[in-house]
Amino acid sequence: MASFFSLLEQRVEDCASLLCVGLDPHLADLPAPTAEAATEFCLNLIRQTAPYAAAFKPNAAFFEQFGAAGWEALKTSIQAVQEQSHRLGSFIPVILDAKRGDIASTAEAYAQSAFQVLGAHAITLSPYLGRDSIEPFIQKPEQGVFLLCKTSNPGAGDLQDLAVTEEPTSGLWQPLYLQVARLAQSWNVRDNLGLVVGATQPEALARVRALVPEMWFLAPGIGAQGGDLEKALRAGLRSDGKGMLLPISRGISRSQNAAQAAADFRDAIRAYARF
Amino acid sequence: MASFFSLLEQRVEDCASLLCVGLDPHLADLPAPTAEAATEFCLNLIRQTAPYAAAFKPNAAFFEQFGAAGWEALKTSIQAVQEQSHRLGSFIPVILDAKRGDIASTAEAYAQSAFQVLGAHAITLSPYLGRDSIEPFIQKPEQGVFLLCKTSNPGAGDLQDLAVTEEPTSGLWQPLYLQVARLAQSWNVRDNLGLVVGATQPEALARVRALVPEMWFLAPGIGAQGGDLEKALRAGLRSDGKGMLLPISRGISRSQNAAQAAADFRDAIRAYARF
Repeated sequence: MASFFSLLEQRVEDCASLLCVGLDPHLADLPAPTAEAATEFCLNLIRQTAPYAAAFKPNAAFFEQFGAAGWEALKTSIQAVQEQSHRLGSFIPVILDAKRGDIASTAEAYAQSAFQVLGAHAITLSPYLGRDSIEPFIQKPEQGVFLLCKTSNPGAGDLQDLAVTEEPTSGLWQPLYLQVARLAQSWNVRDNLGLVVGATQPEALARVRALVPEMWFLAPGIGAQGGDLEKALRAGLRSDGKGMLLPISRGISRSQNAAQAAADFRDAIRAYARF
Repeated sequence: MASFFSLLEQRVEDCASLLCVGLDPHLADLPAPTAEAATEFCLNLIRQTAPYAAAFKPNAAFFEQFGAAGWEALKTSIQAVQEQSHRLGSFIPVILDAKRGDIASTAEAYAQSAFQVLGAHAITLSPYLGRDSIEPFIQKPEQGVFLLCKTSNPGAGDLQDLAVTEEPTSGLWQPLYLQVARLAQSWNVRDNLGLVVGATQPEALARVRALVPEMWFLAPGIGAQGGDLEKALRAGLRSDGKGMLLPISRGISRSQNAAQAAADFRDAIRAYARF
């Protein structure tokens, strides 16, 4: 079975894009505060942007806020991406942005929920509970994980920038986020574990890239969060000009023409990436 | 408005118990792999154990594995706890064990989902994204958070035991989990932020307790995970003999008589706690 990242690489090649379209049905962007409106919002966005999307990334929170009906909207949206995959003749992965993190049978139940029940192909996870909390999600090569490494929010540094060491007397310290990248690289034995590294911090992106030259990054923060696309791409792309997905949500969904906005983002990325 | 922990203290006093009954509808424990069976499993457990429960803790993963119907089962179970609160004339808090962790509007949507849509009174969160990922959940004093500090799984040490320092040249360092406890204490300005500290590691429990003498702990690991109740309580109780919730799931749900098992756990805890 092909690995998650080999499937993603194929899609990136098919559409010559590193754009990941975010599916975030914010209440403020819906005509009514209902799961039906959220579904319609997502289906429209998927229909318009699929040709330019290397992946889609639904954010679980914006569906969960509608309760059971929101869960149904999430499933329907993931199915709609699969329909676009068939229509375009090119498999488009769905990354469930859920930032889960739990242990043992609980982690297995979350994996069951994300991959079997919802039909997602990858999920975002938090690293705080360590290796055994990640394992149930990366047992099958075709199912992937993006592990939180360096996030784009103001409080990211509270933990992620702390200097850590495995041996306090060694005098060798590094920020926690680099240790997470190092661990993730060692856990990535099936080509299905990547990292979330915020696009708002090009210096951190460059440090992680130097440490793990081959891993895939999911790099949020361009658009609404104000990250600089050129700086982020120069810092985070692999030497082959790929290896990085740029999720854009409101920057596309709030434009007058979502298809055009997605095409524009794809082209803006293409100025720095290589296909 | 009373704070979450003052409400919990009242319940602890009312029932003279530190037992937190876990609602984990494992597939292996259900007569059929359906959300209806999960609901029935939870309603029965709630009915039988409510008099002995200082709190209930549904684990989101075991509901999410049933998709939208599981979400409905979760909501129904939380409502059933509220009905028991009315029946017993004593408010029983529900802690949603969801281990979420996200930023900005996403965190707000998760808070909306947990507190408004589902009706939970507290939630477990991961600390990896820092203060602003916690803030949306602790804005209202009556809504609480238990922040992951030291977990009970084998891989907990991968991050949590790393030596961290704010000043590498100082020679002063501590394990990451103690830094998380320290941060959480400073963020706990509304008496509604506690810590998850595994009961399987009494030494870590004692170290966290020494650092934060007043905070509430949620201490899983007794029962199925094999933690020693006496050691955990001696290490983790506050000087007033309270300050710690012991979640038990399978140790109660898999017994022939759940009510008796809950009463027995309550009494076993009572040998060390003070009310």
